[in-house]
Amino acid sequence: MDEARDVAAPVPPGMSTGRIEAFSDGVFAVAITLLALDLPRPEPGHGSLAHELVQGWPQYLAFVVSFFTVGIIWVNHHAQFAVIKHADRTLLFLNLTLLLFVTVLPVTTSVAASYLRDGGDEARLAVALYALSLEVMSLSFYCVWRHAGRAGLIVASLSPQMLRRRTRRNMVGHVVYLAAAVLALLSPFAALALCGAVAVYYVHPGARGAPED
Amino acid sequence: MDEARDVAAPVPPGMSTGRIEAFSDGVFAVAITLLALDLPRPEPGHGSLAHELVQGWPQYLAFVVSFFTVGIIWVNHHAQFAVIKHADRTLLFLNLTLLLFVTVLPVTTSVAASYLRDGGDEARLAVALYALSLEVMSLSFYCVWRHAGRAGLIVASLSPQMLRRRTRRNMVGHVVYLAAAVLALLSPFAALALCGAVAVYYVHPGARGAPED
Amino acid sequence: MDEARDVAAPVPPGMSTGRIEAFSDGVFAVAITLLALDLPRPEPGHGSLAHELVQGWPQYLAFVVSFFTVGIIWVNHHAQFAVIKHADRTLLFLNLTLLLFVTVLPVTTSVAASYLRDGGDEARLAVALYALSLEVMSLSFYCVWRHAGRAGLIVASLSPQMLRRRTRRNMVGHVVYLAAAVLALLSPFAALALCGAVAVYYVHPGARGAPED
Amino acid sequence: MDEARDVAAPVPPGMSTGRIEAFSDGVFAVAITLLALDLPRPEPGHGSLAHELVQGWPQYLAFVVSFFTVGIIWVNHHAQFAVIKHADRTLLFLNLTLLLFVTVLPVTTSVAASYLRDGGDEARLAVALYALSLEVMSLSFYCVWRHAGRAGLIVASLSPQMLRRRTRRNMVGHVVYLAAAVLALLSPFAALALCGAVAVYYVHPGARGAPED
Repeated sequence: MDEARDVAAPVPPGMSTGRIEAFSDGVFAVAITLLALDLPRPEPGHGSLAHELVQGWPQYLAFVVSFFTVGIIWVNHHAQFAVIKHADRTLLFLNLTLLLFVTVLPVTTSVAASYLRDGGDEARLAVALYALSLEVMSLSFYCVWRHAGRAGLIVASLSPQMLRRRTRRNMVGHVVYLAAAVLALLSPFAALALCGAVAVYYVHPGARGAPED
Repeated sequence: MDEARDVAAPVPPGMSTGRIEAFSDGVFAVAITLLALDLPRPEPGHGSLAHELVQGWPQYLAFVVSFFTVGIIWVNHHAQFAVIKHADRTLLFLNLTLLLFVTVLPVTTSVAASYLRDGGDEARLAVALYALSLEVMSLSFYCVWRHAGRAGLIVASLSPQMLRRRTRRNMVGHVVYLAAAVLALLSPFAALALCGAVAVYYVHPGARGAPED
Repeated sequence: MDEARDVAAPVPPGMSTGRIEAFSDGVFAVAITLLALDLPRPEPGHGSLAHELVQGWPQYLAFVVSFFTVGIIWVNHHAQFAVIKHADRTLLFLNLTLLLFVTVLPVTTSVAASYLRDGGDEARLAVALYALSLEVMSLSFYCVWRHAGRAGLIVASLSPQMLRRRTRRNMVGHVVYLAAAVLALLSPFAALALCGAVAVYYVHPGARGAPED
Repeated sequence: MDEARDVAAPVPPGMSTGRIEAFSDGVFAVAITLLALDLPRPEPGHGSLAHELVQGWPQYLAFVVSFFTVGIIWVNHHAQFAVIKHADRTLLFLNLTLLLFVTVLPVTTSVAASYLRDGGDEARLAVALYALSLEVMSLSFYCVWRHAGRAGLIVASLSPQMLRRRTRRNMVGHVVYLAAAVLALLSPFAALALCGAVAVYYVHPGARGAPED
């Protein structure tokens, strides 16, 4: 649909962003659904069901944090692409890098959750790596946005002030994730909670106006 | 597409619901397809194929109930968003919570099915948890709808009468799921059948007029 | 988008079919991708890689047959919904039933493939069940079409002659699948080949005019 | 939406390409997300976490190469269908063949990665097969394009010169993949790097103008 318009235009103004969003939504949807596949699935004959379920609580916690983190990234990706009017190959590449770290998240979540459940010393490293995987995801997100700003891919109706405000908001996440990666070496559960707090932050503060803000 | 319009408008009227639906559809589609992955897959050399297949009947039953439940939730989600004209951050968060419980369903289905097949006493707890997972999914669905009504996100053309009728219909599910969770402690199979009856109810009674009713 | 129009219309003419197609496409896409997950994945230290790969040929064959069968069903689903202008709840339910058998196909394919590879007597039953799973999928497809015709959900521009021609074409598949289910009891490989022939038939004969024919 | 237009037109001009793109995007999105599922997931009690992660490096490398290869194929698929205005059954069949090899890629990647990690002699064959799986994917992509050109399915606004330029660009991939398959018999890691270089090539050189070039 949009494709046809691009092609018919005298000078192709770049790639339409509709299919980038559709593809990204697909990856977000699959990754967020796969997160649940690693929740504990007790089986008959391996100890009491109730006991198995209670033991699984670090896995539920990690699942919920990762689920809402991907959800929030999806919401912000949506808001971001609402003001990106065209795409160049660099943007596509940066967006693919973001999606790569989204697809990796079910794996880092699963590893962190199983070490947290085990309770041994290696849980520190496992959660630090988990926080780092969120950090690189967040960083890729920031790079998509910064490139779009510099390459003039953003709609003119967005004021420079709003542009700066969004860039600042984007910064918060990856500062806190780095802090969480360090904190994990002291207390893995505190680090996981801090990662969850980022998701809560991104749900709340901009809620006054339109969700795009 | 819709994005462009939002941005061009003098005062951004909120987030368009098109991409929320697309993302939700993706999660529904992945979760409903993953349900089948836990069906019994007999392998050569582990007893007769026919015997293995017949033994698997509680798993087929749980699969069919979950499949049509997700299907019906998807249909009603569609009808719901047909009259929600904008989204705010709370709606996005509530919708994510709904999707979280949709992604958890393949896990609770799998656990309930394997305990039902085993036939031991723990099947009661496993099916009670299954019914509760449907209940929280149903509750999240109701919260999306109630928030949309209170926050004025619903199209004006929907009469207050129709609004109330839909709210009542939404209530049915989570009352019955709670009853099923209690019933499971007496008879897990009766509870599973009751959960299936909810799906049948949501397919049928509103069928006179348009499916949106 | 289409939703808004439905709602604004004085008398809601029924559910738009756009989101049914989007959801169905999602299920088709996930199911067709999951088919490949059961291909043999030889691992180091379990015999020669070349030998393992050659042994896996019944699995490749079953995969290719199922892949193109889902692909063709998707193509025909597309052609079908191109002329279905509205949906009622029965159509939604029948379409969900079709999707249920689509999601089951990776399981029946996997079971048939592993018994075919094993080469024992039970391969007959495994392939007969596989053919039956294609048959019920095909039957659901036919029921969607028949209901749409009877309930007046089809665009007026489709001539009764074309309607009958399509109905006849739809019949072919489920006659042949039933034959394949019987043939499997004699020769599972011949039955699998016959299932593959149905996919080839649906790719070819209507190819003269538009793919909708 | 587009469907309606096709049907209303006096002479159906062929199948609209919108739903082909949507379905293909779905398969691309699922396959690219499944790639990550085979990354190493160390578990407590099986040796040091750090050691396990470091040992996994061939698996990370294979994952990144496959991820960006699917990503680039998706980008080029998008650019290709931006100028394909209609589809016939042959195009649908060729596109399905392309998607078949896309869904197979998580399997060939997983096999190549596990043999590379093992480090034995069979890694040569495993990586050669991996390169061949990329080659047939690339070849299918080329066949879609060539058929569209010959069958007059391409928009008139694309100059013959641009058509030839794109055809030449499409050739690069499958020449290099064949070379990589041969190279794998000498050095599997060099072959994997060569496959990665193709993805880098397709990100870069056309970057001067619009991404459609």
